[in-house]
Amino acid sequence: MHWYFVAALLTLLTSSQGILTTLSQSNGRYKYDYATIPFLAEIFKLLVSSFFLWKESQSSSPPRMTTEWKSVRLFPIPSIIYLVHNNVQFATLTYVDPSTYQIMGNLKIVTTGILFRLFLKRKLSNLQWMAIVLLAVGTTTSQVKGCGEKSCDSLFSAPIQGYLLGLLSACLSALAGVYTEYLMKKNNDSLYWQNLQLYTCGSIFNMAWLIFGDFKGGFENGPWWQRLFNGYSVTTWMVVLNLGSTGLLVSWLMKYADNIVKVYSTSMALLLTMVISIYLFNFKPTIQLFLGIIICMISLHMYFAPVHMLVDLPATSKGPSGSLTEISVR
Amino acid sequence: MHWYFVAALLTLLTSSQGILTTLSQSNGRYKYDYATIPFLAEIFKLLVSSFFLWKESQSSSPPRMTTEWKSVRLFPIPSIIYLVHNNVQFATLTYVDPSTYQIMGNLKIVTTGILFRLFLKRKLSNLQWMAIVLLAVGTTTSQVKGCGEKSCDSLFSAPIQGYLLGLLSACLSALAGVYTEYLMKKNNDSLYWQNLQLYTCGSIFNMAWLIFGDFKGGFENGPWWQRLFNGYSVTTWMVVLNLGSTGLLVSWLMKYADNIVKVYSTSMALLLTMVISIYLFNFKPTIQLFLGIIICMISLHMYFAPVHMLVDLPATSKGPSGSLTEISVR
Repeated sequence: MHWYFVAALLTLLTSSQGILTTLSQSNGRYKYDYATIPFLAEIFKLLVSSFFLWKESQSSSPPRMTTEWKSVRLFPIPSIIYLVHNNVQFATLTYVDPSTYQIMGNLKIVTTGILFRLFLKRKLSNLQWMAIVLLAVGTTTSQVKGCGEKSCDSLFSAPIQGYLLGLLSACLSALAGVYTEYLMKKNNDSLYWQNLQLYTCGSIFNMAWLIFGDFKGGFENGPWWQRLFNGYSVTTWMVVLNLGSTGLLVSWLMKYADNIVKVYSTSMALLLTMVISIYLFNFKPTIQLFLGIIICMISLHMYFAPVHMLVDLPATSKGPSGSLTEISVR
Repeated sequence: MHWYFVAALLTLLTSSQGILTTLSQSNGRYKYDYATIPFLAEIFKLLVSSFFLWKESQSSSPPRMTTEWKSVRLFPIPSIIYLVHNNVQFATLTYVDPSTYQIMGNLKIVTTGILFRLFLKRKLSNLQWMAIVLLAVGTTTSQVKGCGEKSCDSLFSAPIQGYLLGLLSACLSALAGVYTEYLMKKNNDSLYWQNLQLYTCGSIFNMAWLIFGDFKGGFENGPWWQRLFNGYSVTTWMVVLNLGSTGLLVSWLMKYADNIVKVYSTSMALLLTMVISIYLFNFKPTIQLFLGIIICMISLHMYFAPVHMLVDLPATSKGPSGSLTEISVR
């Protein structure tokens, strides 16, 4: 399977995630407990990965599985980072309004590039760095409020703590992604075995989060397992399955592609969601969305196109040695 | 003199042109006839070029001057294109509002690239094409109205004629630039001799424009030469000298650099003017201005940076033949 096929599928599913979530609301409110969604998605991913691991173990070449404690103990780390990230996110939202938070979320693109370089020691060309900055600029441009919209005075007038927490949030989000890539690539273990470890931790942490919610709410609505499927509709189940499938695709990309591919997929999904919203939810198209799409398309091309498609290489490298074909890296 | 020094100077002067023009108004109105400004600027350019041509003719190596009718007859063409362009501009503004017109003006960047390719047969790499589109996107982004601003509903709701005329206007503006570059480069004539021909035509056409205005206004305020300096202040004279100097720099760039360099200079000037306006005129800084500046800076780097600074070239071209230094062409 080619990585760009998986990346395109991730874009489609991430985009439908936003749309399904909106469709699952009635009158702008959730009739179910939204915190149950990621928990059930983890369970779904766990079941799918277990099934494929079992199938692999039945085959003539059984899957590679490292079961040493030294390796297994690393798998809760992404879950821990996400837990911290969730709390930082809540703290940020006490300082800044949701639209400023959304704009700042694009910083994650740049922090992912930086941690990708520092942590995974992956070199990027100057052109690729510019492409990453452009991707962040492009998604931000598409989100700039048009004139005539409400709640705009508050944009970038929050206290400094809000921005610092937003930056921390972007770093944590990038760190979780980069760390997961490190885990998936550090050995040749079966993808499903690695998934099993990741999602077991994910399920436990999500369950802990639900229990924490129960204690915080004083068991007002009963323990979490009693209200797990309360108010679930077919659309809610589709949200769960969609989120789970998105997660499985991300795992695949972390092992066989990288974080930058994931960042491009989800950024393109953001734009796609806005375009679809024009038709589905009568979202008013803005010139900034149009500009954002052009910027992100150029960024995509700058990052992934082979060098010889972008520039006219000097004559020496077009020599009869056939070196031109070797240039089309990444 | 290096072209980038001249380009930077053009950016500064173009930027101060906008600021001086605003400063020359009192209570948002011109106390003088604005149509006299380009005429006097043409006269200034004519005087400066004549002086330098005379100095050149005194030197040991007299200037190259083609005086054949076949060559001279081409020099009124840019003036004619500008005349048509001015009229198209007026027609466009009867269909679209000034802010839409300003946004559409950025199309000129792309049409210049296209005519530069078609008319002057200059090849651009894919990366350079993307840079040109990004420059247009960047300047447009910086001009997107923020929320809370008035007169926004009219943006892109004009009749189709308005947009077609806007496109025609962008093509004519690009054509004038590209044709001037062709004139300046078609032989080794002295720059000042070429300027003399250009500005003589410019002066005549601008004078004709003033006379036309007199007839249109029914000589209400007397003939143009009687009201030429009416209401002129020191700032008004600075506007004239600044516009004239800008024109001289553009001529220089057309001969020794090219239209794309000019387009970058004036686009950067547009951003610089907005930044200066924040301090001078309490212009409210917007996130879209900030994003536009990043986009244009990346575009600048993409277009002008030598290839080896942008991408890691394959090993073959870094060979001991020293080919790397040859790559740093534009």
